[in-house]
Amino acid sequence: MTRFRYLSFLTDYGLDDGFVAACHGVAARIAPHAAVIDVTHLVPAGDVRRGAVVLAQTVPYLPPAVHVAVVDPGVGTARRGVAVAAGDSVFIGPDNGLLSWAVTASGGAARAFSLTYRELWLANVTATFHGRDIFMPVAAHLAGGTELTATGAEIDVADLVTLPAPERLIRDSVAEGEVLTVDRFGNVQLTITASDAAQIGLKPGATAHIRSGRHRLTIPYREMFGAVAPGDLVSYADSAGLVAIAVNGGNAAQRLGLTPGARVSMAAASATIRP
Amino acid sequence: MTRFRYLSFLTDYGLDDGFVAACHGVAARIAPHAAVIDVTHLVPAGDVRRGAVVLAQTVPYLPPAVHVAVVDPGVGTARRGVAVAAGDSVFIGPDNGLLSWAVTASGGAARAFSLTYRELWLANVTATFHGRDIFMPVAAHLAGGTELTATGAEIDVADLVTLPAPERLIRDSVAEGEVLTVDRFGNVQLTITASDAAQIGLKPGATAHIRSGRHRLTIPYREMFGAVAPGDLVSYADSAGLVAIAVNGGNAAQRLGLTPGARVSMAAASATIRP
Amino acid sequence: MTRFRYLSFLTDYGLDDGFVAACHGVAARIAPHAAVIDVTHLVPAGDVRRGAVVLAQTVPYLPPAVHVAVVDPGVGTARRGVAVAAGDSVFIGPDNGLLSWAVTASGGAARAFSLTYRELWLANVTATFHGRDIFMPVAAHLAGGTELTATGAEIDVADLVTLPAPERLIRDSVAEGEVLTVDRFGNVQLTITASDAAQIGLKPGATAHIRSGRHRLTIPYREMFGAVAPGDLVSYADSAGLVAIAVNGGNAAQRLGLTPGARVSMAAASATIRP
Repeated sequence: MTRFRYLSFLTDYGLDDGFVAACHGVAARIAPHAAVIDVTHLVPAGDVRRGAVVLAQTVPYLPPAVHVAVVDPGVGTARRGVAVAAGDSVFIGPDNGLLSWAVTASGGAARAFSLTYRELWLANVTATFHGRDIFMPVAAHLAGGTELTATGAEIDVADLVTLPAPERLIRDSVAEGEVLTVDRFGNVQLTITASDAAQIGLKPGATAHIRSGRHRLTIPYREMFGAVAPGDLVSYADSAGLVAIAVNGGNAAQRLGLTPGARVSMAAASATIRP
Repeated sequence: MTRFRYLSFLTDYGLDDGFVAACHGVAARIAPHAAVIDVTHLVPAGDVRRGAVVLAQTVPYLPPAVHVAVVDPGVGTARRGVAVAAGDSVFIGPDNGLLSWAVTASGGAARAFSLTYRELWLANVTATFHGRDIFMPVAAHLAGGTELTATGAEIDVADLVTLPAPERLIRDSVAEGEVLTVDRFGNVQLTITASDAAQIGLKPGATAHIRSGRHRLTIPYREMFGAVAPGDLVSYADSAGLVAIAVNGGNAAQRLGLTPGARVSMAAASATIRP
Repeated sequence: MTRFRYLSFLTDYGLDDGFVAACHGVAARIAPHAAVIDVTHLVPAGDVRRGAVVLAQTVPYLPPAVHVAVVDPGVGTARRGVAVAAGDSVFIGPDNGLLSWAVTASGGAARAFSLTYRELWLANVTATFHGRDIFMPVAAHLAGGTELTATGAEIDVADLVTLPAPERLIRDSVAEGEVLTVDRFGNVQLTITASDAAQIGLKPGATAHIRSGRHRLTIPYREMFGAVAPGDLVSYADSAGLVAIAVNGGNAAQRLGLTPGARVSMAAASATIRP
């Protein structure tokens, strides 16, 4: 029997309503020994991909936990709820891809279960609030030592819904990818990794050609955004190991008009980005 | 002696300042054994009714606790502070109606006390921050086992300020009510209950005529918003057992211009809403 | 060996990303016995002075703790990280003045250390996320009983970067100062203290002449904002012991266009503000 001391919790519920608190309350009633670490509740409503990015980049720093994530535009429809064991943790949420990148970051799915056994749910399940009525109670029971096999029928991990891996490739010394996400500071995180950058000759101190749509930028590639003058553009390997574009003390996403999904290509200044 | 393992905390203090943290600190100093569950701190400034709705719909899912709620436009004036025992919990806050719906949801007030005994307050009480200086310290002492009778003079529960119950009535197969609240997703929650709806013949699968001001809508009544196509309007019984109007994947409050207090009437498609 | 039961945490990381949660996770892994009290994470990006104000006004109400504060526009540059012992607490963060007012409020720096010993850091330190990779791990180790001397080389407390004390002076019965900060409610907090006000003859019940830029206001000085009619301007001693200007039920900062740093002078109505 595995017990978990921690639950983590990510949703698009926002902080204006009592939704998050109701889930905290459910957890406290079932698993009073467990602490809840809130990942974020400000995922834009229904933005599964954004939830998946944040979860995957945060989980490596969390203790072993039952991770509950709910960005669930299909709540109450045919999409199933799942519990997925990966690494030393369990992930609980809708089977819509939200969990998939975090599961991969945790070493891949070892076992998966469809949440079909109502014994672990609240007595009254509403059609629209499965976070409170199903996902959190199941998670809290698991934290208390309930076996995964008590959550429902085991399913093939290959049948789990997964988001396509963020696109990136290297071709002729040019790294191509897309904007993965934008953080609070307006830093633009690409799908291109720091080791992709190194492979095309971009190491701190070099200069990068970056192209995205109508933008053609030639900007420094440095250790960090603080290495350039305030107001200047810079590219660097960010805290998740991905290439990011920032304005020191400013908002790069706003200045460049870049949003998640935008195609971006990069090359070292000595190379040429193909037309 | 009753001890409480949990405090809950709802305010309009916002999250930009240190106000909430100062109260958490006061609780930690007095009752280090107690965990605080934050309900929300984003009640619009001074909106007692909104605070009352959120508290009443969240408390049923919280463990037994001392519930502290502070939306207190009259702080420092003649309004008194109160401690109200209801169900297996105690409610602490200004006596301005904020607590009343949650107290009702918890089975009604069993006993009530006016917070007049300064022994439980911080040594220095400011005129404008009773959450930190009075309400939270009193609550933390109660959580630690202090008797309710030590908080102040007992008062008649009939003298507590209560908000009028949300208006709703059924007349000639038409349910009349008003918009109770709007959540983060823009879902419009009515005062009309799911059982009111059933009583006028609205069951999942039926069609509802809804009228509010200039709006005359004929929309499906379903189990959940996900039962209609993205972008479509739908009505359903929400996670609080009330009828709500939503746009699947969209914002119904914005589309319809509905705000709390707006009058709404509903009927099953076979019935007629009276002019 | 001192152990701390609490960590406090203030940043400009915002709540949209997983940054705060990653730090919580790091703390939980290293010091599972310690609870984290979040002060705020909504300091405007890079606004060191605003972070310093909020921290200094909140810390007096927190239990003994390792206080971690990160508003760090110079992350990754030459600015050093420090641990500062003050009162019964330790402060950890960048040495850019952010900690200085809270350290003063806690009785002044007793000892200070430059965070140079990598043994307490995460194994992989990124250039841009020292909150996660350095500050929080060091703090969590201290909470667990690690000695301050294990954090790095001791430095002279006189060498710590400090923000200049908020400006205020009394001259010819006129108190001069500036806007220190504005809270969620739009209340304008001045650097002028309640005892400054008393010294120039402003006690509750008096009338204040206030001048700031083109504004010349004659408004009541009262115990609290609730002492005037809704919509009226009022000045009063706020919950931090500073003079504030408010609109009862409204937003004074918006109405008067006052922002932090604006010069303000006050006098009792019987005195005259010099031109």
